[in-house]
Amino acid sequence: MADGFNDRLRSAVVAGGGLLSRRRLLGSGLAVGGAAAANFSLAGQVRADPLVPEWATSAGEPVRGYGVPAIYEENVKRTLIKPYEDLAPGYSFSGTPLQYLRGTITPNGLHFEVHHGGRADIDPAAHNLFIHGLVERALRFDLAALERYPMVTHVHFIECAGNSFFNALMDEPMQAGCDMLHGLVSNAEWTGIPLSILLAEAGVDPRAQWVVAAGDDAPSLARSIPLEKAMTDGMLALYQNGERLRPEQGYPMRLLLPGYEGNMNIKWVSSLWLTESPAYTKDESGHYTEQLSDGTVLAFSFGMGVKSVITHPSATMTMSGPGLYQISGLAWSGSGAIETVEVSADGGQSWAAADLVAPVLPRAMTRFTLPWHWDGAPTVLMSRAVDATGARQPTRNAWKSRYAPTSGNHYNAIQSWRIGADGSVANVYA
Amino acid sequence: MADGFNDRLRSAVVAGGGLLSRRRLLGSGLAVGGAAAANFSLAGQVRADPLVPEWATSAGEPVRGYGVPAIYEENVKRTLIKPYEDLAPGYSFSGTPLQYLRGTITPNGLHFEVHHGGRADIDPAAHNLFIHGLVERALRFDLAALERYPMVTHVHFIECAGNSFFNALMDEPMQAGCDMLHGLVSNAEWTGIPLSILLAEAGVDPRAQWVVAAGDDAPSLARSIPLEKAMTDGMLALYQNGERLRPEQGYPMRLLLPGYEGNMNIKWVSSLWLTESPAYTKDESGHYTEQLSDGTVLAFSFGMGVKSVITHPSATMTMSGPGLYQISGLAWSGSGAIETVEVSADGGQSWAAADLVAPVLPRAMTRFTLPWHWDGAPTVLMSRAVDATGARQPTRNAWKSRYAPTSGNHYNAIQSWRIGADGSVANVYA
Repeated sequence: MADGFNDRLRSAVVAGGGLLSRRRLLGSGLAVGGAAAANFSLAGQVRADPLVPEWATSAGEPVRGYGVPAIYEENVKRTLIKPYEDLAPGYSFSGTPLQYLRGTITPNGLHFEVHHGGRADIDPAAHNLFIHGLVERALRFDLAALERYPMVTHVHFIECAGNSFFNALMDEPMQAGCDMLHGLVSNAEWTGIPLSILLAEAGVDPRAQWVVAAGDDAPSLARSIPLEKAMTDGMLALYQNGERLRPEQGYPMRLLLPGYEGNMNIKWVSSLWLTESPAYTKDESGHYTEQLSDGTVLAFSFGMGVKSVITHPSATMTMSGPGLYQISGLAWSGSGAIETVEVSADGGQSWAAADLVAPVLPRAMTRFTLPWHWDGAPTVLMSRAVDATGARQPTRNAWKSRYAPTSGNHYNAIQSWRIGADGSVANVYA
Repeated sequence: MADGFNDRLRSAVVAGGGLLSRRRLLGSGLAVGGAAAANFSLAGQVRADPLVPEWATSAGEPVRGYGVPAIYEENVKRTLIKPYEDLAPGYSFSGTPLQYLRGTITPNGLHFEVHHGGRADIDPAAHNLFIHGLVERALRFDLAALERYPMVTHVHFIECAGNSFFNALMDEPMQAGCDMLHGLVSNAEWTGIPLSILLAEAGVDPRAQWVVAAGDDAPSLARSIPLEKAMTDGMLALYQNGERLRPEQGYPMRLLLPGYEGNMNIKWVSSLWLTESPAYTKDESGHYTEQLSDGTVLAFSFGMGVKSVITHPSATMTMSGPGLYQISGLAWSGSGAIETVEVSADGGQSWAAADLVAPVLPRAMTRFTLPWHWDGAPTVLMSRAVDATGARQPTRNAWKSRYAPTSGNHYNAIQSWRIGADGSVANVYA
């Protein structure tokens, strides 16, 4: 460590536990110190020359049509939280490995999946979208027709209503990674046709208040969507991160209802039925309703709450000794843009505002970061987000007091990670 | 067509050839008209019921660790423009199929490739980055060390200096898709460590003016980079669209120099050598220099110019008859954000400003769109972009008059597509 290290460190501190200001750190001349001194003495050791590794001694592989990740990244895959349910055939879900990702975009191969009847394999040439019910004229759209309609592009997260259910339901915190604990959320750039344009073409009857959307998976997952939401920012999504939707995200078309719980973003969508009242489908009369602690049941709980998770470091990781780190995580809200994310490195006694990575977009994942000097002592890291409406993440106790003990949906409480003296990172309810 | 169609169409016109205002169109009640009337009479034809297709009659496939595109999208792949050069082993490149993509992000499997010695296959555990030369202390960074450094995230395009070389060099316009003609450009969300932080840790000697960067591919592609660029916005990129770099984009690490020609964004980077003068490497003394029409040679031509291409419609596509369409394309500039994109549907006689998809980010691809009513007559579509510095795309004639006949790099002239009466779309120099 350089002379004056502690003085310069102290001058950058913004909260307890070693949280630092990025701006003050940049001017301090304080180095992370992760690098090793390089040794360029090559005498007598040409074969061991570190500047000419084996793979640089002959030409590599040719170009290829569609690339795949490096073989060394085989561990970076979706975790199969529920591989396949035989009693309810095809009920299965997999989580995005948030702890291995950086930035905000989820690559298409790692976008989380929830299937109620398996992954449908649809021939796009034989697929249609019908708009019917309270419309002036019932319409059928095939893909060739849809290609001519005006398209828009937006980055949005999709989060399963049941994301983080282990933390909601288990009395003792499960020790698992962010993929298992919080991986039922992903973020992508979606391109498609505004529902308002398609509905206008069918001619909306003034009596219509709801759009009952159904998909072409085996259980025909169906949800009632307020017409106003569909007309405001609902999208028939055809493309995901530039290319056509992947099968597990609803190929060849899905609904995108920014900020609404995942299952309402109907995959493999084939029918939009305009009605005066909601349909009370099986997916909204039993499933996807939440029992509250006073015994009442919340139905039609559309929007996902404001939420944040520190992904680096997070449970199952090990810190490589005391020193400087960058705390990094993700925040999102179904109600709008993220306004602030605060981080604590002393178990909630003090907090500092994290830096938000621009552009901060509404109903999209926002990456937050903050420099941190870990002194090697045990402590607890936490993050809490506030969105543009002023909504704040609750503590776990506050969340649990609102919902019945068996409720696991819409869990958005503050996540705490305990850092051990050995560098271990554990899930704790604190 | 509804009554008053032509009146409403005329009220939305913003330029010749049928270019329309999105805002005026939205209020006009004008329908695209691509949909068919739906027939819900199911009597006696239960098996042909279009609402219960075959794939909805049984549960689908289970979740999986890493997803792949639908089997019906097999044609959406990189085009192997130069598969593998045996005389210069491994010299090869493939283009992004821009004509099949929407939005702005290029999915990682489709990011263009240019290899001078094939795709290197590097064991990340054995890879190092050295910073040496005019520094206070030479440093060696392995991946474990780099993981602790502060990371930033930005969306940026990378474009090969030779992108669009067919249009630059061929006397007769080649009839091929955007993948062949313009596919050596892609756009991704990159995450990595600012070079300024790594260089500061090594301690930059005041005499240093250049950073000579070299990669661990077989030909050890090396370029001299102005130190000021490296310090301003240079990045050691580790992640691409959230996940680790793909091998063909430099796994486990590459340089990102926003706006600079592709080859300078050194892939598989292993050495940053700080010097007083450029190194005049083989890749910048012969290759990647441009002969001008006056006989002089331009070396160190770093930044890519302002450019735009209409991707929908584009050559090799066929229009499905007269009527409403959305013209859609991509624009980018190495000097900053896109300021405007103008579109002509009458071969350049009149122009209208396209809508730019937000957020419009500096040195990143920007999607532009404009509604268009094609009356079925032959015409020529064109787009021209202006960036934040005021730079404009040249015509092909203006570009050709600046460069020697054999120069094919840094071609950014206006692209024209001829629409035939039969709906065909052809590459033309107009």
